[in-house]
Amino acid sequence: MKWTRKHLLTIEELSAEEITMVLDTAASFKEVSTRTVKKAPALRGKTVVSLFMEPSTRTRVSFELAAKRLSADTLSITAQASSITKGETLKDTARNIEAMNTDFVILRHSTAGAPKFLAERLNASILNAGDGAHEHPTQALLDVFTIREKLGRVAGLNVTILGDILFSRVARSNIWALTKLGANVTLCGPTTLVPRVFEQMGVKVCYNLDEALKDADVINLLRIQHERQRKSLFPSIREYASLFGLNQERFKLTKPEVVIMHPGPINRGVEIASEIADCPRSVILEQVTNGLAVRMAALFLLNGVQGGGAVPAVEAAA
Amino acid sequence: MKWTRKHLLTIEELSAEEITMVLDTAASFKEVSTRTVKKAPALRGKTVVSLFMEPSTRTRVSFELAAKRLSADTLSITAQASSITKGETLKDTARNIEAMNTDFVILRHSTAGAPKFLAERLNASILNAGDGAHEHPTQALLDVFTIREKLGRVAGLNVTILGDILFSRVARSNIWALTKLGANVTLCGPTTLVPRVFEQMGVKVCYNLDEALKDADVINLLRIQHERQRKSLFPSIREYASLFGLNQERFKLTKPEVVIMHPGPINRGVEIASEIADCPRSVILEQVTNGLAVRMAALFLLNGVQGGGAVPAVEAAA
Amino acid sequence: MKWTRKHLLTIEELSAEEITMVLDTAASFKEVSTRTVKKAPALRGKTVVSLFMEPSTRTRVSFELAAKRLSADTLSITAQASSITKGETLKDTARNIEAMNTDFVILRHSTAGAPKFLAERLNASILNAGDGAHEHPTQALLDVFTIREKLGRVAGLNVTILGDILFSRVARSNIWALTKLGANVTLCGPTTLVPRVFEQMGVKVCYNLDEALKDADVINLLRIQHERQRKSLFPSIREYASLFGLNQERFKLTKPEVVIMHPGPINRGVEIASEIADCPRSVILEQVTNGLAVRMAALFLLNGVQGGGAVPAVEAAA
Repeated sequence: MKWTRKHLLTIEELSAEEITMVLDTAASFKEVSTRTVKKAPALRGKTVVSLFMEPSTRTRVSFELAAKRLSADTLSITAQASSITKGETLKDTARNIEAMNTDFVILRHSTAGAPKFLAERLNASILNAGDGAHEHPTQALLDVFTIREKLGRVAGLNVTILGDILFSRVARSNIWALTKLGANVTLCGPTTLVPRVFEQMGVKVCYNLDEALKDADVINLLRIQHERQRKSLFPSIREYASLFGLNQERFKLTKPEVVIMHPGPINRGVEIASEIADCPRSVILEQVTNGLAVRMAALFLLNGVQGGGAVPAVEAAA
Repeated sequence: MKWTRKHLLTIEELSAEEITMVLDTAASFKEVSTRTVKKAPALRGKTVVSLFMEPSTRTRVSFELAAKRLSADTLSITAQASSITKGETLKDTARNIEAMNTDFVILRHSTAGAPKFLAERLNASILNAGDGAHEHPTQALLDVFTIREKLGRVAGLNVTILGDILFSRVARSNIWALTKLGANVTLCGPTTLVPRVFEQMGVKVCYNLDEALKDADVINLLRIQHERQRKSLFPSIREYASLFGLNQERFKLTKPEVVIMHPGPINRGVEIASEIADCPRSVILEQVTNGLAVRMAALFLLNGVQGGGAVPAVEAAA
Repeated sequence: MKWTRKHLLTIEELSAEEITMVLDTAASFKEVSTRTVKKAPALRGKTVVSLFMEPSTRTRVSFELAAKRLSADTLSITAQASSITKGETLKDTARNIEAMNTDFVILRHSTAGAPKFLAERLNASILNAGDGAHEHPTQALLDVFTIREKLGRVAGLNVTILGDILFSRVARSNIWALTKLGANVTLCGPTTLVPRVFEQMGVKVCYNLDEALKDADVINLLRIQHERQRKSLFPSIREYASLFGLNQERFKLTKPEVVIMHPGPINRGVEIASEIADCPRSVILEQVTNGLAVRMAALFLLNGVQGGGAVPAVEAAA
């Protein structure tokens, strides 16, 4: 199979084969980051611009390190610093970035569809680093990569996603990736944050936490966005922690080999007890490590389509 | 001819031959940015610091990419982040930057003459990236580069600069570059923003927009700085757009082969109608592309004087 | 002797031999920064993250340039931009940075002991870039490097540290370094800022400025932190300048070959008269230059322990 996409916009549009191809490529790049010299030449002389219109350190840093380890030139533009404050539109900003012969634009934006909007108008490859409540494809790819690495497969596994799902791009991208790869997905959380309409995506919605936990092979805990105004949706952080937080009591109900995931940053004592976040079944930090490998893989595959040459991953990483 | 200047401070001090030398060098560097591997080794091991005391994404990014594509190490210091907030003077900040064996300082500053002040005190090469209402030399160089590229020459062309000229460093640098290369320059805009005193620079001042447009080979539209306090100078954005904006009606009066320029970021619907900004005669995005080439050329030429060796541009770009 | 430490946390824990080894290594790296191509390959493919939870341009820039000149990939994270604002703990932030296979974390933090806290929990090498009022080891190393370079030795010299010592990590690190290398240290300043308890560190506390100046071979002037709330400690900047500022009058009392130092940024006219800061006996800018060499040396030595191979400094700099 050959990778043919120029952009990475959504998981929804990817086939199971394409997802698997990213995971396989990421596996070969993961090794690069364990070397003494963490450097592959695949993107030498390419320009990667990260355009973050919403604050995010961890995703931006992961993408930038991925680009640097592939030997690209990188530039970071954040909303506050950019011409946006002079009233320029997203399209004009992006066209200007492209006019500097930029090869890749990594976009985070509060509006769903912003990456697609750019992909339709620019020659550069666009990578969606999170668009509104829509998708966050590299997060889902790193999540399924981590599951596959830990449990050897994704198909047939029971994956419970717990928490603030209504506005979560992480949940949406994960649901697409997991169902395409054949996992059984259960969503759980307060009724206000986990509407039944998600069942249309081929997943189970369950409001009984104990039930959602007991058969799970993987539990993916989403961050409670307590910075945002959600007063009408749940009463308090303390109440959420007591009703839906993964504490030691509930952890006893889970399978002994369950894998605990979280996209970070974690709220210790809210959605997850501190000891569980740090226990051997937690793969939270491995997710971060794998995120870098997945983003290297994404840049590498898109670069091949861009005309970066048909360098196989193994050689590129040599 | 040999380039002998260590700094790029103003267009005023450059001869027509020096301007042409930058343009010729830029032409060879423009090709570098179209390669798969956009990288030339000319500034390898050199340190380029951009010191921006006024916010500017596009100019800073253009300079930094230029430096990176020439293989320099780059560092960006912006006013908010710097020791300036601890009460340090510009001179002390710059001397500290230089003490780290910095080879180039790219300075944007709100005070006219700040780059010259540094050039007289530091060993590093200074590049003026805009000083108050004084000059913005690389903007003028990329503008004349773009004109020459589009129309084959600059001498003898009619160039109309339209808009907020009074406080515009872009206008000042353009007037110097265009008149030195033999163009006929007409300034147009509200009387409050285009004082007659500019006639002393060898240009025509014209308050009749239709007249200023009809014979122009090039129209350069300056940005209306509506963020700044200009209440006493013109009544409203809407009135400016109606009286001096380049709309479809007025566009019909222009020559069929007219070239439309704008230094960006554009205010769509204010100084320029959206369709004109995007029409085939608009070279606004080519200006951005050329900006990078011109800045690579400037860094390259100054580097030769600094003792970077007599590498010819063609080899350096090899 | 072989360097065996993985972290650079304090001067207190270093032996005189270890300090001398950093200085000797720095001397060989200082030469690298004077070359046309200021680049050594020692850290190629290594990732250096600077995590600055307090604002500092000069120290951050010095560390980042040091890392770049050693060919490392660098990333800068500042408090405002980081996940800290989402309530993440320092430990979680650091573990996430490390999970991206980061080799070095350069930490500035307002809490004394924060670098040690990380060093006990992470695999990456930690470099303390200033922790609260505790230590700022690279500043002390560059200070003793500068003294040794200027006067040929440190042992037996009379070094007066003047100013706001109570909360100064620069003073604490300098006292450790100077006394370990055999200098005689005198502290001077207002009684409220120079408590007698410092005598326990093996130094002399003196409230008579003339006496503190007259026998000094080196005077190290600390910055008056007038941004901070110190109203109860001294009445005004003007009074400080008049009572403890190094002015021309007092300068006449000093030895003819005295060396004047300041960690910067200087307050001209407060702790030091402008002419003295710029006079031939002032080594303030040489301190900046040497800071880069010392930080290259620190990164290089820690890298050797990390498994970066046994490349000798001379070859690494080749």
